[in-house]
Amino acid sequence: MSDFSATDLQARFERLRSNKLFELLVVIIVFSALLIGAKTYPLPEWSTTLLLFLDWAITIFFLVEISIRFLGEPQKRRFFHSGWNVFDTLIVVVSLIPIEDSELALIGRLVRIFRVLRMVSIIPELRTLLNSLLAALPQLGYVMLMMFIIFYIYAAVGSTFFASINETLWGDISISMLTLFRVMTFEDWTDVMYETNAVYPLSWVFYLSFIFLSAFAFLNMIIGIVVNVLEDEHRKLAMEEAAEAGEPTLRELQAEIRALAALVREQGVRR
Amino acid sequence: MSDFSATDLQARFERLRSNKLFELLVVIIVFSALLIGAKTYPLPEWSTTLLLFLDWAITIFFLVEISIRFLGEPQKRRFFHSGWNVFDTLIVVVSLIPIEDSELALIGRLVRIFRVLRMVSIIPELRTLLNSLLAALPQLGYVMLMMFIIFYIYAAVGSTFFASINETLWGDISISMLTLFRVMTFEDWTDVMYETNAVYPLSWVFYLSFIFLSAFAFLNMIIGIVVNVLEDEHRKLAMEEAAEAGEPTLRELQAEIRALAALVREQGVRR
Amino acid sequence: MSDFSATDLQARFERLRSNKLFELLVVIIVFSALLIGAKTYPLPEWSTTLLLFLDWAITIFFLVEISIRFLGEPQKRRFFHSGWNVFDTLIVVVSLIPIEDSELALIGRLVRIFRVLRMVSIIPELRTLLNSLLAALPQLGYVMLMMFIIFYIYAAVGSTFFASINETLWGDISISMLTLFRVMTFEDWTDVMYETNAVYPLSWVFYLSFIFLSAFAFLNMIIGIVVNVLEDEHRKLAMEEAAEAGEPTLRELQAEIRALAALVREQGVRR
Amino acid sequence: MSDFSATDLQARFERLRSNKLFELLVVIIVFSALLIGAKTYPLPEWSTTLLLFLDWAITIFFLVEISIRFLGEPQKRRFFHSGWNVFDTLIVVVSLIPIEDSELALIGRLVRIFRVLRMVSIIPELRTLLNSLLAALPQLGYVMLMMFIIFYIYAAVGSTFFASINETLWGDISISMLTLFRVMTFEDWTDVMYETNAVYPLSWVFYLSFIFLSAFAFLNMIIGIVVNVLEDEHRKLAMEEAAEAGEPTLRELQAEIRALAALVREQGVRR
Repeated sequence: MSDFSATDLQARFERLRSNKLFELLVVIIVFSALLIGAKTYPLPEWSTTLLLFLDWAITIFFLVEISIRFLGEPQKRRFFHSGWNVFDTLIVVVSLIPIEDSELALIGRLVRIFRVLRMVSIIPELRTLLNSLLAALPQLGYVMLMMFIIFYIYAAVGSTFFASINETLWGDISISMLTLFRVMTFEDWTDVMYETNAVYPLSWVFYLSFIFLSAFAFLNMIIGIVVNVLEDEHRKLAMEEAAEAGEPTLRELQAEIRALAALVREQGVRR
Repeated sequence: MSDFSATDLQARFERLRSNKLFELLVVIIVFSALLIGAKTYPLPEWSTTLLLFLDWAITIFFLVEISIRFLGEPQKRRFFHSGWNVFDTLIVVVSLIPIEDSELALIGRLVRIFRVLRMVSIIPELRTLLNSLLAALPQLGYVMLMMFIIFYIYAAVGSTFFASINETLWGDISISMLTLFRVMTFEDWTDVMYETNAVYPLSWVFYLSFIFLSAFAFLNMIIGIVVNVLEDEHRKLAMEEAAEAGEPTLRELQAEIRALAALVREQGVRR
Repeated sequence: MSDFSATDLQARFERLRSNKLFELLVVIIVFSALLIGAKTYPLPEWSTTLLLFLDWAITIFFLVEISIRFLGEPQKRRFFHSGWNVFDTLIVVVSLIPIEDSELALIGRLVRIFRVLRMVSIIPELRTLLNSLLAALPQLGYVMLMMFIIFYIYAAVGSTFFASINETLWGDISISMLTLFRVMTFEDWTDVMYETNAVYPLSWVFYLSFIFLSAFAFLNMIIGIVVNVLEDEHRKLAMEEAAEAGEPTLRELQAEIRALAALVREQGVRR
Repeated sequence: MSDFSATDLQARFERLRSNKLFELLVVIIVFSALLIGAKTYPLPEWSTTLLLFLDWAITIFFLVEISIRFLGEPQKRRFFHSGWNVFDTLIVVVSLIPIEDSELALIGRLVRIFRVLRMVSIIPELRTLLNSLLAALPQLGYVMLMMFIIFYIYAAVGSTFFASINETLWGDISISMLTLFRVMTFEDWTDVMYETNAVYPLSWVFYLSFIFLSAFAFLNMIIGIVVNVLEDEHRKLAMEEAAEAGEPTLRELQAEIRALAALVREQGVRR
């Protein structure tokens, strides 16, 4: 009997989960995001208490929502197989810890900010957008490694020669890599160059070769790959549409011609 | 009789509307644009009166033009269905209000500037250009939302941690979003970073992750989508050309092969 | 007899024109370019005379070369139909005018610099590159007009509101357009914005809407068009290659199937 | 007998070369890269000796590795046909020279930094990436030449007119080309322009025409070519996949239809 009632309860939760009521969630998340924004403005005394109250209301709402989703899941283990469910649970759990300490308060605020990311977890279109972004990453893996090697070599050369000229820009290899990223974005790169050019008159070769290697070639490569990935998906879609519209493949045409040839041959034999 | 004369008058207006005389309108708009430009230069005393006179002449010309177009429209209600007609009427009506006040004078000048936009409303090629731009927007809808969420989260984090460092750049969430847009365009972003890096030595992670997420991934995505949209139109055109040139589809070929097979089978039976 | 000798002479000039000897021209142009570069460095007294002598030698060489080409042309009138020939002749003629005046001397140096452009006129690959660039321009015509209208309207608004804030940046409509171009290239655009934002707190709407309209949408459009133009040429090439390789079109296949059907039908009738 | 043992030895080296043991090499190179990075940080006294020891250990490891590869090569002459082998050997040989002099020490450090490039020589994916980059270069050859001509002409004009205004930016033709590259990257280009605009009020034409010619047209061209190269490879891959999946070509279909027609004709004759 208890087993039956449990299944019954679960089914009811499941229905509740797929219910239109859950569209309320989007409104709550937007409201929670506005709350976060409001906190960054100077506010009157009385509103602080109100905000604190609303914050707890949202935390409790999220706790209830995730509990319903968990109870509505037929197989409890599979619930945590989804990265998004783990993320949602973490956000709620960390929000529950009462933090008064000024240092931890910042972390508490950070967690409340990350609640906005739940927007991505509940809108399917945003989830697929993020997934397609993540799907493009492995394709870029070796380009990234190549980029890193170029950055590393130039940063090593940079900190070897220029560290004595400007400690802030070329002090050690990690600072040098940051400076090189700055050069790659063309951000006041000539100021960096003119400074070292005064000591090593040929240092412009260092900067120009780096800019050509990194910015031009690699950025184009990345654009190329991204464009290709998008075209792939586009082509896939077009192919699916063609298949749905009933356009036969060349292989199907070949099969039909062969069947016809067999028919002709057979009739020749029969006669 | 009065009904007949009204129709007659309307037909005459309609003819006038499609008349070559309306090409004059382009010249008047260009002239009105030049007038707006001329006003930004220091001018001698006497020319102010001349400019005022010319301005009123153009306003009256536009009033006459829109009246003719309205009277030339067979169905009066449909006239305001077109957004461009509403826009044209608004521009004329607001121009008619005499404004002497120095505060309102600026608004009066603004309306006169927007008259130049009438160039877009009368040249069909520019209208289609604007329409294709607007048609691409819904495709970008979710990318824009994603972008906004990223901006919002980073701005919330930024104003939480950096507001005490630089009130002008990170004062509240809207100012922070403006600063992040600045970082995205690489405009003196290192100045912004070095300032916060002095307090939080790991703040470069904040900037670099933001640049990677926003500038690289999303800009490429937008380019990709725009390229795809353009290719779509291009492919559509190519397909239409192929269809016009009489190239058969694979389905048509399949139908012919099947008809042939039926013929062969039929002849085999007949014998 | 005199007519014959003229034709004979012309044929000989024609042969000379297509002769390998003309490859010397490339060397002379490169040498002339190096001379121009050398003049920008501080040089010893004696070399000035040498450079002057070499300069005259090159001018005379170019004069001889263009004369041979003109005399080698069978139809004298068609010679000036080519824009490049007109350009080459102009460069030589202007170089011949002796200029001593310090003001005109600059123009003389300019003409000598433009001699380097003759490199483009004699290397066919560079000529086609320039032609394909010029061929893409009409496609961009309306985009350019749209861009100009956007620039004009924003510049008019800018000089109306901001002229009193910064005369150097927003003084009149042409200066404002230059400032807007600067904003479009993201060059210290925040400095421009912060200045006007102090007076009109909503002026960021002006800048952001301008950046979105111009930089994002239009740059992407231009990229899209250029990519399409290039793809067109690419596809044309691919199609030609496919045709050369003997791959049949779908229409040819259709014709063969129909011929086969006719054959089957004919044999059915004959029996 | 000695000949046999040599072949035997060589075969054993060859096996060793293709052995999994060589995966150790990647670890050693990464370790050597970390060592280079570590040297840029301030280190305690005792670690200098340790680093020197590790450096020699790596040098010896590389010497052994390249010897094994050389001995494992069946045809000794072909070993140096590969550019990567020559590069690897050079790195090792230069590392072996003991350098104490402070001036040469920098070169010694440079060679040790270039060891990181061996990462590219041993990971095949990075090698193909670099090769595809180099393969795109000849395609860009004439665009590069065009770009150089544009730069040269503008630099010549720039140093002719602006050298007296700012010696640091327009002193001679090579400095001017560097300044123009800066303008092309939009790096504080307005500062450069405003300075010369004060003397020559029309100098903005110089900068704007240069930016349009170089940045817009050519950058797009380069992007277009790179995109095309990538699409080519993509299409090749797609074609190979289609061929593997057994999709027949149109030519194969044509051949089958013709065979069928011959069969029908033959049967008609036989009867």
